[in-house]
Amino acid sequence: MRQSQLFTKSLKQVPSDETSLNAQLLIQAGFIDKLFSGVYTLLPLGLRVIKKIENVIREEINNIDGQEVYMPALHPLQNYIQTGRQDIDVLFNTELKGGSKLVLGQSHEEVVVPLMQKHIHSYKDLPTKVYQFQTKFRNELRAKSGILRGREFMMKDLYSFHLDEEDLNEYYKLVQKAYFRIFKRCGILGSTYLTFASGGSFSQFSHEFQTLCVAGEDNIYVCDKCNLAINEEIIDVQSDCPNCKTKKLIKHKSIEVGNIFKLKNKFSASFDFQVTNQNGEQSDVIMGCYGIGLGRLMGTVVEISNDKEGIIWPKEIAPFNVHIILINQDNESVKVRGEEIYQNLLDMKIDVLYDDRLDSRPGEKFSLADKIGCTKRIIVSKKNIEKGLVEIKNRATGEVEFVNIDEIVQKLQL
Amino acid sequence: MRQSQLFTKSLKQVPSDETSLNAQLLIQAGFIDKLFSGVYTLLPLGLRVIKKIENVIREEINNIDGQEVYMPALHPLQNYIQTGRQDIDVLFNTELKGGSKLVLGQSHEEVVVPLMQKHIHSYKDLPTKVYQFQTKFRNELRAKSGILRGREFMMKDLYSFHLDEEDLNEYYKLVQKAYFRIFKRCGILGSTYLTFASGGSFSQFSHEFQTLCVAGEDNIYVCDKCNLAINEEIIDVQSDCPNCKTKKLIKHKSIEVGNIFKLKNKFSASFDFQVTNQNGEQSDVIMGCYGIGLGRLMGTVVEISNDKEGIIWPKEIAPFNVHIILINQDNESVKVRGEEIYQNLLDMKIDVLYDDRLDSRPGEKFSLADKIGCTKRIIVSKKNIEKGLVEIKNRATGEVEFVNIDEIVQKLQL
Repeated sequence: MRQSQLFTKSLKQVPSDETSLNAQLLIQAGFIDKLFSGVYTLLPLGLRVIKKIENVIREEINNIDGQEVYMPALHPLQNYIQTGRQDIDVLFNTELKGGSKLVLGQSHEEVVVPLMQKHIHSYKDLPTKVYQFQTKFRNELRAKSGILRGREFMMKDLYSFHLDEEDLNEYYKLVQKAYFRIFKRCGILGSTYLTFASGGSFSQFSHEFQTLCVAGEDNIYVCDKCNLAINEEIIDVQSDCPNCKTKKLIKHKSIEVGNIFKLKNKFSASFDFQVTNQNGEQSDVIMGCYGIGLGRLMGTVVEISNDKEGIIWPKEIAPFNVHIILINQDNESVKVRGEEIYQNLLDMKIDVLYDDRLDSRPGEKFSLADKIGCTKRIIVSKKNIEKGLVEIKNRATGEVEFVNIDEIVQKLQL
Repeated sequence: MRQSQLFTKSLKQVPSDETSLNAQLLIQAGFIDKLFSGVYTLLPLGLRVIKKIENVIREEINNIDGQEVYMPALHPLQNYIQTGRQDIDVLFNTELKGGSKLVLGQSHEEVVVPLMQKHIHSYKDLPTKVYQFQTKFRNELRAKSGILRGREFMMKDLYSFHLDEEDLNEYYKLVQKAYFRIFKRCGILGSTYLTFASGGSFSQFSHEFQTLCVAGEDNIYVCDKCNLAINEEIIDVQSDCPNCKTKKLIKHKSIEVGNIFKLKNKFSASFDFQVTNQNGEQSDVIMGCYGIGLGRLMGTVVEISNDKEGIIWPKEIAPFNVHIILINQDNESVKVRGEEIYQNLLDMKIDVLYDDRLDSRPGEKFSLADKIGCTKRIIVSKKNIEKGLVEIKNRATGEVEFVNIDEIVQKLQL
């Protein structure tokens, strides 16, 4: 994309009520805009990152047999009365003109269960797994963590349906592995721990994926040896490592980037969702649910991967992999070479942002490029072009290389 | 995709309150599910169609310089007070815990104007065009037209910002052309008319794209010679063809599949959104807005492209282009050949649904395939396999061809 065509600009001022680092960095570089606390617009750069995260998640969930659907945001309150969740704290309420009470989906168990009930009748229809990328609405009293805790945010929610707990347990392990692959591809695996958390009244534990970060709202106790952690909320019932039993756990602030939960028959029982089993008897469908908030994941990456100049994106979710910056644009051969390089990279299907703006000084261009944080920067200048070279800089390491123009593509090593 | 893995089934019964043809056809073939009137879930087949429509629209809008963003659904009521739209009929109301009044976005002028105001300051920043695919919420009193009129639905909304009306007029014509390309690719161009409609208090006309259909809620008067139409709502002020002036217009029922509107300075004035022009003076930004409802477009295709067996999808938006049906699956060579053909088509990046279900009779398979309505059907049977052939049937024309197995790919002519 030509940067001269991008309507967003580097903003010198972020809103004065924006205290979170992630939103400050994202707003000033033009990734997001704040409508009000906890509610943000994704601008072109931000939408690109979210779409890349979405695609990573989609690939990994398709690999474990997820079928993608898209459920509504408007839910009948009646469905929540049926599960006893009509009074949960974060519901937004509204109503139809005729007076029917609605809530905005804060999760989708109340919709997915009656839906699947229409299609699943026998053990032969199980297991089945459906997921979606859909907006959730949560009426948080305070929303001061930028895109880490939104009142409106995009979530991947996966629901699995099984004949028995054994089958659920098996799938639950597959999801754990898929989640680790997702967090690896999004560049946060190194500081992300599988964390034991409360399982509610019907399961001993649930599992969270917690990423160490000072901006986190959670506290976890980490066993460095086993790469496991325990959420503070259950430290009274579990105070040692569930694997090696050591009591040497280290407390950290952290962000919950994902969670997985054995719902068992909690929601199927509410809706009387049963199947005929192999013996011709009716039995409750056994469920699991598995969430990842896309904005929170993006915000976590920003919180843990930045420097004083701006954001440093992991390559798989960078808004663009390559950022070409022209300087000395009044020079004809710089302009011609710049265009050539841009077209070559486009032809190679490389995601490239091309700073062709005429009204910006080099210093401004470099500063905005650091804020945006693409993986590699190619600087096309008069001095280097005359030697047949360009400068390639790695955003994460700061490493600089001078590369022959003909060898740019192989040197990018994306 | 293997059909044995698809959780949806052909439903023999549609909800008794579902009177619209589009929803009946879509529900029985497993494309959508009805949560309540005007609110539907997209099931895997339906989501595939919507994603294909979305991609067609995205390509065409990117081609006319649209920059994609994603704005929130929760809007401060205050923004609607500022434009005087706080009392419009279809708003859903809700509120934050602290008491702040919110509405659910029924359109996005009240969000996009203050957003663009932060980035656009000078004539040099114009023109700019932003668009999104985002859910709209409209509290309709009645919603009896299936997915033609949703209370919650996905819309592509594009907003353009200009220095003057001349520039707006020029872009407005480009959007008209892009819309015709979109409707062509979605297979409804032949029955879709550019239709003159009310321009509100600030513009002589707006333009709608109306598709002839008995299920439509609109009435238009068509000039067959000029391929133009007039919406009944303005027949008092415009009763002849705006082009050839004939009064021989034919009345039809129709569906509004898109509309484009010159907003001029209506919304920019409300927010005092001005730029510095070439003379250093402040001037109101001039706007246009352009909408297409994705569900309505999908529903329109279903309404006008079906037969008594089911839906007939235009090829660019079919859930799958090819539907392979195995019969005599107990025969080993049928199974082996079926798998080979399926893998070959996948390798060729052809979208293919593979009916490998063991528990369905051929008649059931054919009947569901007709309901689903993929472009071409390949029937792999014992009798034909022995001759080295498969049968290929065109869903739209019913034409049948017997094709050598090695020549399937070239015969598909997708």
